[in-house]
Amino acid sequence: MPDFSIGVDLGGTNLRIAAFTSEGQLLEKVSLGTKVSLGPDHVVNEMCDSIRGLAHKYSHKGAFQGAGIGVLGIIDLETGMMRKSANFPGWTEYPARAEIERRLGFPVILENDGNVAALGEKWMGAGRFVPNMAMVTLGTGIGGGIVLDGKIWHGLHGMAGEFGHMTVEPEGVPCGCGSHGCAERYASATALVRMAQEAAAHGDAPGLVKALASDPEFGSKAIYNLAMQGDEGAQRLMRRFGQYLGIMMGDIINALNLDMYVIGGGVSSAWDAFAPAMFQEMRERSLVYAATAPADPLGDEKRGLGRAGNPERKTIVTRALLGSDAGLYGAARMPIMSA
Amino acid sequence: MPDFSIGVDLGGTNLRIAAFTSEGQLLEKVSLGTKVSLGPDHVVNEMCDSIRGLAHKYSHKGAFQGAGIGVLGIIDLETGMMRKSANFPGWTEYPARAEIERRLGFPVILENDGNVAALGEKWMGAGRFVPNMAMVTLGTGIGGGIVLDGKIWHGLHGMAGEFGHMTVEPEGVPCGCGSHGCAERYASATALVRMAQEAAAHGDAPGLVKALASDPEFGSKAIYNLAMQGDEGAQRLMRRFGQYLGIMMGDIINALNLDMYVIGGGVSSAWDAFAPAMFQEMRERSLVYAATAPADPLGDEKRGLGRAGNPERKTIVTRALLGSDAGLYGAARMPIMSA
Repeated sequence: MPDFSIGVDLGGTNLRIAAFTSEGQLLEKVSLGTKVSLGPDHVVNEMCDSIRGLAHKYSHKGAFQGAGIGVLGIIDLETGMMRKSANFPGWTEYPARAEIERRLGFPVILENDGNVAALGEKWMGAGRFVPNMAMVTLGTGIGGGIVLDGKIWHGLHGMAGEFGHMTVEPEGVPCGCGSHGCAERYASATALVRMAQEAAAHGDAPGLVKALASDPEFGSKAIYNLAMQGDEGAQRLMRRFGQYLGIMMGDIINALNLDMYVIGGGVSSAWDAFAPAMFQEMRERSLVYAATAPADPLGDEKRGLGRAGNPERKTIVTRALLGSDAGLYGAARMPIMSA
Repeated sequence: MPDFSIGVDLGGTNLRIAAFTSEGQLLEKVSLGTKVSLGPDHVVNEMCDSIRGLAHKYSHKGAFQGAGIGVLGIIDLETGMMRKSANFPGWTEYPARAEIERRLGFPVILENDGNVAALGEKWMGAGRFVPNMAMVTLGTGIGGGIVLDGKIWHGLHGMAGEFGHMTVEPEGVPCGCGSHGCAERYASATALVRMAQEAAAHGDAPGLVKALASDPEFGSKAIYNLAMQGDEGAQRLMRRFGQYLGIMMGDIINALNLDMYVIGGGVSSAWDAFAPAMFQEMRERSLVYAATAPADPLGDEKRGLGRAGNPERKTIVTRALLGSDAGLYGAARMPIMSA
């Protein structure tokens, strides 16, 4: 058996730990809840128990390369401290890396979740045959990460790839970041629900009104389902979502001119409902995309890119392949790369 | 004397050729008009005569490292062909590099003007002590270039850094690129004049009305002068310019998290009139900038960064230092780097 490593995905709700071979094969995955309310020490203890367990279990089969941990929120890469995060109240300035390493007795690599997801898709997902790519994760908010020459592009403070806070509507709705009109206020799960409520209040979306009244768990998935069933109000909403996402994507493409942009996260499952509007907007907005887009991006998207990479040198915008495991893959990849 | 190289700045109006030592000292600069109407062969002949002349003149003093040429517009880096450019009618698909190399008898490096300006400021200008920076050139339009680890970041098609076509006003005025609401329609010399005409027509800027009527050469400089003389309408305009520039800059900072962003081009001489609004907008718009900005960016801007680089790890947004010569420096730097 080849060497192996461990990846951790530390989210606000879920804590997942997985062992991978150095060739990218998933060996075993453990899913725990993140008991944020019990405090950082409790969560870190549980995490370290699982890491130790997996490291021991596979140690007779290959050399353990170490552990990488993707954390929701922003990490100070130099100190390994967590910065202020709405998802981890009470963790502010918690010396996460030092506490984890003290328990495990070996060094670990911390990284923010947007970056590990990008690295995961680069390693074993949609981006595995291109050197340069960005990943956009559509969930409650919008996460992002940039991979250049196969490695995470951190920027000066580990904050590169904050795509969700690019402005798509200068006079738009306020955002938790202090700005207004940020992309994640128009092209995330949260944004979809807000726009559905607005459309329902406006009286021009009877299907959404009905769904809002009858479904106590009304969310982005319900809007997508309505759109796929032909509801016009929901379809309008998904198009609007796609247009705003297209503005953000067009800006990123104009600035970076990468080989590939991978769109993942829970809301990316609504791809069929928003992608046509997104592609149209990108083509109108981005001269770089317009000049370099494949003839049929939706068709090309289904085909994906083969082992030959990107021989036609087109700008590829495509769906993620690893689903919610992207971050686990990327986290496990980090110790292998630095080994 | 150390080695030397030649840089060329091929614009739509001016053609300039300069010799530099490999240590960045300007030896001699030749300025010609670009006689676009006489066709590409004529322009290339004149350029090559000057390159040969300078190469010969300094050849007894050091080893000639080659020539780099910055061209307004977009170059296909692989083929050395010029792509469609409004500034060079009739040059479309002109095999510029092949024609130049045939005349000179040695290889040259072609690059687009935004990229060479960025490399020039990195080499001998504002960015000389940081590894990663972007440059924004405010002129008739907005040019851009990205330098990572000291080298131009081209992107897949040499089109990275098209900051001027990032969207700052989704429902804004049409742009020549096919989109609307692009940054260069709100934060360039052309944009300033258009916005002045709009403000004058609106009747709420008497100073601008007067200037428009009396000054046959009314341009962005006149607006800046009016603003500095205290004209309220002109000041409002410069603030608006700064706000839109701040939206664009905030997007770039959120995406890239670089050490430094250098603002150059002719309109950057109006810095005092637009920079305060730009900094305020960036602080509101960009969580990355807000978290990493120096306490007093305008004061820090005046001090600049010393040889120690960026020891406080702040995000620096500052004026260019090389003026209209940035592109010449960058063009001359290319053959030295690839030597």
